[in-house]
Amino acid sequence: MKLYYSPGACSLAPHIVLEEIGEPFEAVRVPIGDGAHRQPAYLAINPHGRIPALEIDGTIITEAPAILAFLARHRPDSDLLPADPVQEGKCLEFLAWLSSSVHTAYAQVRRPERYVDDEPDYPPVMEKGRANIARHFAEIESILESGPYAVAGRYTVVDPFLLVFYHWGVGRYLSFDMARDYPAWTQHADALLARPAVQRALAREGIAIR
Amino acid sequence: MKLYYSPGACSLAPHIVLEEIGEPFEAVRVPIGDGAHRQPAYLAINPHGRIPALEIDGTIITEAPAILAFLARHRPDSDLLPADPVQEGKCLEFLAWLSSSVHTAYAQVRRPERYVDDEPDYPPVMEKGRANIARHFAEIESILESGPYAVAGRYTVVDPFLLVFYHWGVGRYLSFDMARDYPAWTQHADALLARPAVQRALAREGIAIR
Repeated sequence: MKLYYSPGACSLAPHIVLEEIGEPFEAVRVPIGDGAHRQPAYLAINPHGRIPALEIDGTIITEAPAILAFLARHRPDSDLLPADPVQEGKCLEFLAWLSSSVHTAYAQVRRPERYVDDEPDYPPVMEKGRANIARHFAEIESILESGPYAVAGRYTVVDPFLLVFYHWGVGRYLSFDMARDYPAWTQHADALLARPAVQRALAREGIAIR
Repeated sequence: MKLYYSPGACSLAPHIVLEEIGEPFEAVRVPIGDGAHRQPAYLAINPHGRIPALEIDGTIITEAPAILAFLARHRPDSDLLPADPVQEGKCLEFLAWLSSSVHTAYAQVRRPERYVDDEPDYPPVMEKGRANIARHFAEIESILESGPYAVAGRYTVVDPFLLVFYHWGVGRYLSFDMARDYPAWTQHADALLARPAVQRALAREGIAIR
């Protein structure tokens, strides 16, 4: 398998999961900051120019929720999705919500050009994105208050995906005081950062979260 | 099982799939047009106030991609997701893309208030949403040009989800000339409309697509 990732992007979640399941893989760096995801070489991998992409036996799978579910199911022994179908459905629901609601709210702040064409129209889009994120983050906090993990009382592929958003929370586009405003989520992040698989993925990406 | 749906909303996809798998279910109408999804009765089901929601043994699963994958896996004999894990991953990828990119682009047109607070800021958001949808629809058309179905050369849960967007294409918020501009997709829609399960779901919702 081959994972195309950009440091600190949502590719961090499948990156962690690849480390968790102990699958041999090649990590291919496609730094978004350099615009590498918009170069022909990467557009040949994913015409949408989005990170992550997973290559497996010559087939490319994109979209974080799909890659996360695929990896968990590829190695059921790693137990990263519940065997109970309804609980598995709850995990897929959480992945879908993070991707279609929380990630898109962040994109309003980080990439307003996806939502409006002209720069003078960016500020209200960014402002509303920020408000939407704060609402979503409050919901995540309240879910993790009854934690330690997001779904089914155990570590699943949802948890590394949450770590991505935590990372964005402390990052320069949001600059939230995560430790003060989201203490349950901060505890969750700390629990993840203690995992060797998470540490290996962060070291390879060259990023620190806390 | 109990499906909460609004006529013609993206709940149509799980509605069709419930008919396809022959699962006994109760269909609960929550018409978005009347704001029923924002009433306390429905917010108790899905606090996000979004349609669809599926109730199974007292547990609620929301988010169309999660419900579709859950239903297909609940009845593997119905063969609505490929048994091959990589092909299944391709289906999950398509569901995720429809939800996080195509649906959100439509929401810019249909619900600009999710993206900006003030009404004077709506037009550029709606305009860009329309342009994004046209780009996504062109991609869907080119995918369907090479197959009768979206993934793996066969009918999967992706196909009824596509029918939802086709329906929105002809609807009053987009008013695209789908037959003229998306002939392969129109053929796909016609193939779906010939299926008894699709006809039963449309009849219950009281909508016509073509």
